[in-house]
Amino acid sequence: MPQQTALVNLELASVPSGYTTISFLSDFGVSDEFVGVVHSVFRSIAPEVEVIDITHGVPPHDVRAGSLALARSVEYLCPGIVVAVVDPGVGTDRRRIAVEVGEGESVLIGPDNGLLAPAVAMVGGPKQVIELTNSNFHLTTSSTTFDGRDVFAPVAAHLANGVPLTELGDPIDPNSLMPAIIPVSYIEEEILFTEVLWIDQYGNIQLNIGIEDLPEGQLQIKIGERTYPTNVVSAFDQIPEGGVGLIVDSAGLIAVASLRSSAALEFSVSTGDSIQIQQATDETTITTQVSLTPKKEST
Amino acid sequence: MPQQTALVNLELASVPSGYTTISFLSDFGVSDEFVGVVHSVFRSIAPEVEVIDITHGVPPHDVRAGSLALARSVEYLCPGIVVAVVDPGVGTDRRRIAVEVGEGESVLIGPDNGLLAPAVAMVGGPKQVIELTNSNFHLTTSSTTFDGRDVFAPVAAHLANGVPLTELGDPIDPNSLMPAIIPVSYIEEEILFTEVLWIDQYGNIQLNIGIEDLPEGQLQIKIGERTYPTNVVSAFDQIPEGGVGLIVDSAGLIAVASLRSSAALEFSVSTGDSIQIQQATDETTITTQVSLTPKKEST
Amino acid sequence: MPQQTALVNLELASVPSGYTTISFLSDFGVSDEFVGVVHSVFRSIAPEVEVIDITHGVPPHDVRAGSLALARSVEYLCPGIVVAVVDPGVGTDRRRIAVEVGEGESVLIGPDNGLLAPAVAMVGGPKQVIELTNSNFHLTTSSTTFDGRDVFAPVAAHLANGVPLTELGDPIDPNSLMPAIIPVSYIEEEILFTEVLWIDQYGNIQLNIGIEDLPEGQLQIKIGERTYPTNVVSAFDQIPEGGVGLIVDSAGLIAVASLRSSAALEFSVSTGDSIQIQQATDETTITTQVSLTPKKEST
Repeated sequence: MPQQTALVNLELASVPSGYTTISFLSDFGVSDEFVGVVHSVFRSIAPEVEVIDITHGVPPHDVRAGSLALARSVEYLCPGIVVAVVDPGVGTDRRRIAVEVGEGESVLIGPDNGLLAPAVAMVGGPKQVIELTNSNFHLTTSSTTFDGRDVFAPVAAHLANGVPLTELGDPIDPNSLMPAIIPVSYIEEEILFTEVLWIDQYGNIQLNIGIEDLPEGQLQIKIGERTYPTNVVSAFDQIPEGGVGLIVDSAGLIAVASLRSSAALEFSVSTGDSIQIQQATDETTITTQVSLTPKKEST
Repeated sequence: MPQQTALVNLELASVPSGYTTISFLSDFGVSDEFVGVVHSVFRSIAPEVEVIDITHGVPPHDVRAGSLALARSVEYLCPGIVVAVVDPGVGTDRRRIAVEVGEGESVLIGPDNGLLAPAVAMVGGPKQVIELTNSNFHLTTSSTTFDGRDVFAPVAAHLANGVPLTELGDPIDPNSLMPAIIPVSYIEEEILFTEVLWIDQYGNIQLNIGIEDLPEGQLQIKIGERTYPTNVVSAFDQIPEGGVGLIVDSAGLIAVASLRSSAALEFSVSTGDSIQIQQATDETTITTQVSLTPKKEST
Repeated sequence: MPQQTALVNLELASVPSGYTTISFLSDFGVSDEFVGVVHSVFRSIAPEVEVIDITHGVPPHDVRAGSLALARSVEYLCPGIVVAVVDPGVGTDRRRIAVEVGEGESVLIGPDNGLLAPAVAMVGGPKQVIELTNSNFHLTTSSTTFDGRDVFAPVAAHLANGVPLTELGDPIDPNSLMPAIIPVSYIEEEILFTEVLWIDQYGNIQLNIGIEDLPEGQLQIKIGERTYPTNVVSAFDQIPEGGVGLIVDSAGLIAVASLRSSAALEFSVSTGDSIQIQQATDETTITTQVSLTPKKEST
């Protein structure tokens, strides 16, 4: 009976007039009042709209990290409006856009710097793109540094209220949007070269591969200058103490993890690092002292 | 006229059909999109339910810290559903449970690892416990690492919508629930041995004692290798500069505090540390140079 | 058509009976359950009120930082109730107040320690001030350390429900309120002496001056012991790599910024530091090796 949710719900019969939910992601952090001010603008213009904060913990200016967080979330978001702001180019002539997806069930709003691109691709690509040139729907301000407050928030709120997308500015060619650059893994001499996409709250190290990309059999993993034996587990508690596990994470990609500790800290790994995986050589399995029995079941 | 609130409100006449509030606690942090995705699942299934974030700042994997934060909050939560997720055993066969309390005014949902136990005890113990085995109310996913999103959130949302608790899975014996282990203080040779339960945002050091546990008269406190004179104050501003105060904190327990600074930082104290309190010896009161006059009233 | 929002909306015809929005700012942080408990109290008493978190990231006990964050936000907040809690004097006899502004469109609630003062001044000053002495509208508790939960939250919720302001306590003289102390800039021997008000999430350094306060022509800025050439830009991307830019920030004040990095970290600047700005001497412009061409347009 219950169904997984998605921005694009093909069961909807018609294009809605207005939207009931705004999902909001940014690099604004929680130390300052930026998020609260944007919420206030949403509510001042569209008092009935519900706002869901996806996260505001994207590292400052990190467009790629923001685009990946949005892509990981998009399958679960409520149909409606998505406002995403990671915008180091604010104040320049980079475009500010609204991207309609599906049959109009959702509209993604933000800067045209690649931030929205992976999420838009995941829900079927853009149906229509508008550059937000109609300043009648912006706040009037002399500031050039906070388009989240002055442009994206009021535009989203008016859209929620039922203002047609096409009134927000001029249509632009969807093919002209800034693409996102996602690193791809590759195999060279039977070694799988991967890149770290994301390190989460627990220190799990997400790689740019799925389980189908892994070599078969016993595996070894090279992190920095050291090589460790590893294998695929389905629960963190199956990773041996001090060992390295590979797990299908909540986004469906392979993450490198350790037992109840931060793998990123233990192995000094950062986003963008290269990690290599291959079939275990005899040497690896011989030299390791690590028990493969899960800790919880050991005596 | 105004009344303190509680999960269990005995004035309610009958068991409600559905719930209007979900209170949500986790160790998901605010850096990633985990919290936002769970909110999106709540709203996708139960658009009318109100979600209150208790906190998501529980240290990663720290079940005890999570259970204490929930216990400190429970007296103030709105009747309804509580979802609590600190779940290092995710993916193993640890049980996922829903615990009905009171006369059905509230249901606590989470892993059966002791996280819910102190809160459940504080509101009168379990009335009925269900293991969440009915996967019809879970999201369909190949992931085994994010039960907050895939199990606890959809179950809570369906319960909010009026799905009967008993449809969510099989009843289990309330006596089989994993208990919480809370350290108790003890007295040995007139010294009160306490343990640090919690260090809050301000660096206040909460101990596992109430004011009734304190020895009478002038006190001294041993933190690490050093001993300080101390006394009970009713406001932080009554603590002398550089001194140590004992205060009844907002949860009704004794906290060690210093004047407008972090006591935990000043005395290098961590959760779980032992701290000893006893009546002051003559030596302590003689050797201290600290004025007992509050700073604000000194000349 | 769209209008900037404000606490005081002169278009409202009459004083409302009750309020629909509570805007909430504190130094409670996001690690503990303080914010969630206060939300629970709001909702328990006033289930229909909408709560917007301005921020809870004010540094612990930092009344000035809190007052500035509130002042920066106030122009954008929804009309209604503002609860602000940065309250190192909790438990002492400092007053707890509700300040009505405008024609009753908004009421600011918090401790009388200067926290509310700049925001109140920005919306036209106090119309009426009540000391929150009527404990019938407080929670009953033996705790003296959490007035946010026990006094300010229930008072705000009852006010939202339509309880008249004058029932919450005794009127006091608006002139007796604790003022805020905001540092002013000054000029001495053609050097503009400024003070750092705020360092934001991105490391931008906000000064206590507007663009009209700057000297004319080419500028130089002295931070710590070093002097740098600088000029006014309208986008962060116009700042040369390794250089120093001055930008009108989102609050309308001058901020010192660097290109896609934290100026505060690069120049080791903290809140309260002194920074001097003057017309560039020939020496400065000669000795600098920094290109003034924006990085993005360089070859």
